[in-house]
Amino acid sequence: MPDALDDAETLTLVQQIFTDRIPFNKVLGVEIDKLSFDDVRIRFDYRDELVGNFVRGSLHGGVVSATLDLTGGLVAFLSVLRTMGGRSAKAKSERLANVGTIDLRIDYLRPGIGKHFVATGSILRAGNKVAVTRMELHNDENSHIAVGTGAYLVG
Amino acid sequence: MPDALDDAETLTLVQQIFTDRIPFNKVLGVEIDKLSFDDVRIRFDYRDELVGNFVRGSLHGGVVSATLDLTGGLVAFLSVLRTMGGRSAKAKSERLANVGTIDLRIDYLRPGIGKHFVATGSILRAGNKVAVTRMELHNDENSHIAVGTGAYLVG
Amino acid sequence: MPDALDDAETLTLVQQIFTDRIPFNKVLGVEIDKLSFDDVRIRFDYRDELVGNFVRGSLHGGVVSATLDLTGGLVAFLSVLRTMGGRSAKAKSERLANVGTIDLRIDYLRPGIGKHFVATGSILRAGNKVAVTRMELHNDENSHIAVGTGAYLVG
Amino acid sequence: MPDALDDAETLTLVQQIFTDRIPFNKVLGVEIDKLSFDDVRIRFDYRDELVGNFVRGSLHGGVVSATLDLTGGLVAFLSVLRTMGGRSAKAKSERLANVGTIDLRIDYLRPGIGKHFVATGSILRAGNKVAVTRMELHNDENSHIAVGTGAYLVG
Repeated sequence: MPDALDDAETLTLVQQIFTDRIPFNKVLGVEIDKLSFDDVRIRFDYRDELVGNFVRGSLHGGVVSATLDLTGGLVAFLSVLRTMGGRSAKAKSERLANVGTIDLRIDYLRPGIGKHFVATGSILRAGNKVAVTRMELHNDENSHIAVGTGAYLVG
Repeated sequence: MPDALDDAETLTLVQQIFTDRIPFNKVLGVEIDKLSFDDVRIRFDYRDELVGNFVRGSLHGGVVSATLDLTGGLVAFLSVLRTMGGRSAKAKSERLANVGTIDLRIDYLRPGIGKHFVATGSILRAGNKVAVTRMELHNDENSHIAVGTGAYLVG
Repeated sequence: MPDALDDAETLTLVQQIFTDRIPFNKVLGVEIDKLSFDDVRIRFDYRDELVGNFVRGSLHGGVVSATLDLTGGLVAFLSVLRTMGGRSAKAKSERLANVGTIDLRIDYLRPGIGKHFVATGSILRAGNKVAVTRMELHNDENSHIAVGTGAYLVG
Repeated sequence: MPDALDDAETLTLVQQIFTDRIPFNKVLGVEIDKLSFDDVRIRFDYRDELVGNFVRGSLHGGVVSATLDLTGGLVAFLSVLRTMGGRSAKAKSERLANVGTIDLRIDYLRPGIGKHFVATGSILRAGNKVAVTRMELHNDENSHIAVGTGAYLVG
């Protein structure tokens, strides 16, 4: 297949989609810090407009849920791509349109205070229809801000 | 008490805090459409930057979770204010600093497609320590986009 | 089709499976009180062995989560059966083996105190792969004991 | 204080309450396999009456949610006892009456098939009002059956 995408090219494609084609990701200011099929690390900086609690200067709960949701979705998408082998970029990016969050649970552990934040995710269940992921948010001092669990439709 | 805030003044205070003092609410573009101690209705318009799925033009999952979280938090805060009678504006706005999301569950029912969106919330459990709320998101055609449940620390 | 099952026969089949072939349902003492494709009502009586809190004599949290899970699963299964038209009993009962809970959230609103309890469920999302349901538990005085939301794999 | 309970006595008290005074725990057949303030391990054997899926012979979803709920509650209770120092048995066992599940999320990863099962729990947030815990269920071959997260009112 002339169009076949190898693993490195697939990860580059994911990076491009994440950065260029998901408008709200820019609002949040999220960037992929590390990306492999086993390890996802998203980073975003503190900015005043992300604040929810004006007294404490802490992240809006919705920023926390949004970043954990997109981290879980990315992990779920990678679990699907892994099964698609050397399919084409078109096939792989089209597949993303079928990935959707079924549900999400976020547990808020500490106020979201920090200079920057790191969201990580891992897969709990990699089915051909449904993927379940776990996500964590830490600040720059490695305080544990929040955890989440998401179920994603992938097939 | 010269500083005592009656019900109408209390709702005006809540409206001010919501609009002026929670920066990320402006990013989301949320506005209070209706506000009483029994009924909360939040509205926001579709904007390109709120999009998550570039193929469908649907809301980012994080926009859905963020708007449902803030709706639930508002409902929880109102359940507390109701018990504070004619306390002062200072006492009432300080109390908000003690309201925090414990956890949140969002169920995504349909793609978030629409011209504008309405989030509503109601209280399931109004404790003096913990409030539990239920939230719903509909689009301008009254399609049911998502539901949520939140637990909030209030005391 | 000589084996075709009409709606009434399908509901009878569901009743039989529920009553005879799910051992833990007997431990819980649950019975189907009302069953249609639109309306599910499960009932169980208080028994000492279902108690969790020995001081209050209230239901064990696990009894609450178990009865709401089985109610949601039943609602999800009915949403599938509805799409199977006049298929055979064999096809319909085999389909149950594919129905599984993906995840479940239970919110405990009040201590589970009462003489008997009623669990009801309704469908929020009836997909061909995933169904999402909402469940409620009330006691004999119609106090609201708990609510739940479940996501079920159905296809 | 003549009635003061040291750590070892406190754990013995917890063991007694768990075993003797929570009737539904006997129905489930759960036993404390390991108990410290840092580490909780609950075990139960497969029995036919715990089955939900008659085709696969797998645990009823309600057995999974019940055992994870009680594991989380036990972890939450221990996090409270830790702060009570050498208080009396009466004070400590009375405190249990104030511990209640706020909400619970269970994610079902694999069918609950096995000879025996082990539930473990750890604390994510140890507040003086609310504790958040994470729980896991494995079978005798160490397959990961389910995970859960619970929020508990503790104060």
